[in-house]
Amino acid sequence: MDEGTKLLQGKVILITGASGFTGEHACRYFSALGMQVAAMVRDEHNKPAMNGVTYYSCNLLVADEVDSVVRKITPDYVLHLGGKNSVPESWKEPILYMESNVLSVLYLLDALRSFPACRVLIVGSRLSVGLTLGDRPQHPYSLSKSLQKAAALSWKELFGQDVILAEPCNLIGPGPSTGFCSLLGRRILQEERGGGLPPFQVSSRHGRRDFLDVRDAVRGYGFLLTGGRSGEVYQVCSGTERSLEEVTNAMLRLAGSEMSVHWGESRSEDAVAEILKPQFLESAGWSPRIPFETSLQDVIHYFRAEKGGI
Amino acid sequence: MDEGTKLLQGKVILITGASGFTGEHACRYFSALGMQVAAMVRDEHNKPAMNGVTYYSCNLLVADEVDSVVRKITPDYVLHLGGKNSVPESWKEPILYMESNVLSVLYLLDALRSFPACRVLIVGSRLSVGLTLGDRPQHPYSLSKSLQKAAALSWKELFGQDVILAEPCNLIGPGPSTGFCSLLGRRILQEERGGGLPPFQVSSRHGRRDFLDVRDAVRGYGFLLTGGRSGEVYQVCSGTERSLEEVTNAMLRLAGSEMSVHWGESRSEDAVAEILKPQFLESAGWSPRIPFETSLQDVIHYFRAEKGGI
Repeated sequence: MDEGTKLLQGKVILITGASGFTGEHACRYFSALGMQVAAMVRDEHNKPAMNGVTYYSCNLLVADEVDSVVRKITPDYVLHLGGKNSVPESWKEPILYMESNVLSVLYLLDALRSFPACRVLIVGSRLSVGLTLGDRPQHPYSLSKSLQKAAALSWKELFGQDVILAEPCNLIGPGPSTGFCSLLGRRILQEERGGGLPPFQVSSRHGRRDFLDVRDAVRGYGFLLTGGRSGEVYQVCSGTERSLEEVTNAMLRLAGSEMSVHWGESRSEDAVAEILKPQFLESAGWSPRIPFETSLQDVIHYFRAEKGGI
Repeated sequence: MDEGTKLLQGKVILITGASGFTGEHACRYFSALGMQVAAMVRDEHNKPAMNGVTYYSCNLLVADEVDSVVRKITPDYVLHLGGKNSVPESWKEPILYMESNVLSVLYLLDALRSFPACRVLIVGSRLSVGLTLGDRPQHPYSLSKSLQKAAALSWKELFGQDVILAEPCNLIGPGPSTGFCSLLGRRILQEERGGGLPPFQVSSRHGRRDFLDVRDAVRGYGFLLTGGRSGEVYQVCSGTERSLEEVTNAMLRLAGSEMSVHWGESRSEDAVAEILKPQFLESAGWSPRIPFETSLQDVIHYFRAEKGGI
């Protein structure tokens, strides 16, 4: 166990979006640390049984529900993972994205005004922008996360709450992710089980992204909860960028697959503005523990083990 | 009639917040210009009878209602005046302010995606800020208007809608305003009709503000609707700042009142960051027509004529 996280033992942590990809890993991790995990899920029937985790149904878009569940839980810490995170879907449902990513954070922070000692970690996005004239969001998802960030940090200033933000890179690993590696892993398994599908589309051979195992990210969130500074925004990433070609080839090799891939010509991802480093986390003693290939292998195992849905 | 506003004749304008202080003047003005005025009001029973104006009940916080009323109206222009605008109230009801000032604009713009030629003028606030780290809002009202501005301008970029913003100064004149001059006017009349009240509190003798008659502002909105540039933010003000002492004394003199005033020591308003000028409006041929004293006189007349409520 990391030194800092001993502070968390026995404390109550509310995790929103608990049945999502990161949410499930977070529930498992913080429960294993000895925290009392209160897991908030939207759907009454979507409560995975997990030792040491208590599930609460709550629609984050209904202020009264949020308030009443928060009062029941009386959290010491909050990890806010709830919300929507698909760029293509955000073009189809922009209002849903604004409500889910902006309004829900405001409802949550408002409910938490009754718990001024509670530390809140909001998981934002690297795709958020500053909302100044020269820095406009490129899609509704980015707008929703940019408004979320501005709203959360301003609210914190106005009401003196203890709020920190994390901006994770592309998280990978086993579970119901909608990220690039999981889409690819799912498709490889579809191909194994039947095939005959058109080639897998990758937007660009050269597009580079930073990938981090979701379990390392969740451990990083623990570091932020114990050591982060109120009002700060923290990068949660590996500090290493890989091209989509490198990632695709590694995944195919690990799966022993010869699935054909169609490489697009998109240039939008080629120019990476800035390679970000997890400066705070590294200075606090955190570094990624799970090798990249292990993450990919676990993605493949996850889909091979999954009977339905593919 | 101003030259530019001839373009508006016969066109359909949707005015939200139509039963508010500015809303009533706007309905009257645009109806007199020969526009078909569709006035959106929250409350079914709050529909003043006004020639040439059709009233529609709509809760701006219910997306489906907004969508359905907008489809009925099929507007060529929208003047969005709806929302909340009291700084003290925003501390008590911050969530209501975020919903009323941010969500309602998003619902409206989303509904208007079906009318891409429609020009939308959103009336923001000078109290909005840039939401950058060094430029944080001072109260929930400011946060709500800052998010509104960022959301509206970004949404416009994403969906290619024709959106402009106006940032009015302190609007004064006859009607149910909650601004400084109206509070003072109302109090002078309470004093005339009974008295015995504690002295009227003014936060600072030296605080300076720009006051503009609401009817001149509404005429300015007409200029923006016809001549403003999509995506721009326009100042709607007189360009002249007056101290609260000067305004208070003018009002007392015009009303023939000797009501006592208590001058506070607040310094927060003393330092005006920037004296703004209505540059675009002036270049387009607009200038305030109603003398300051006439506006004050009309405030006094309004409260003297009003039988109830004081």
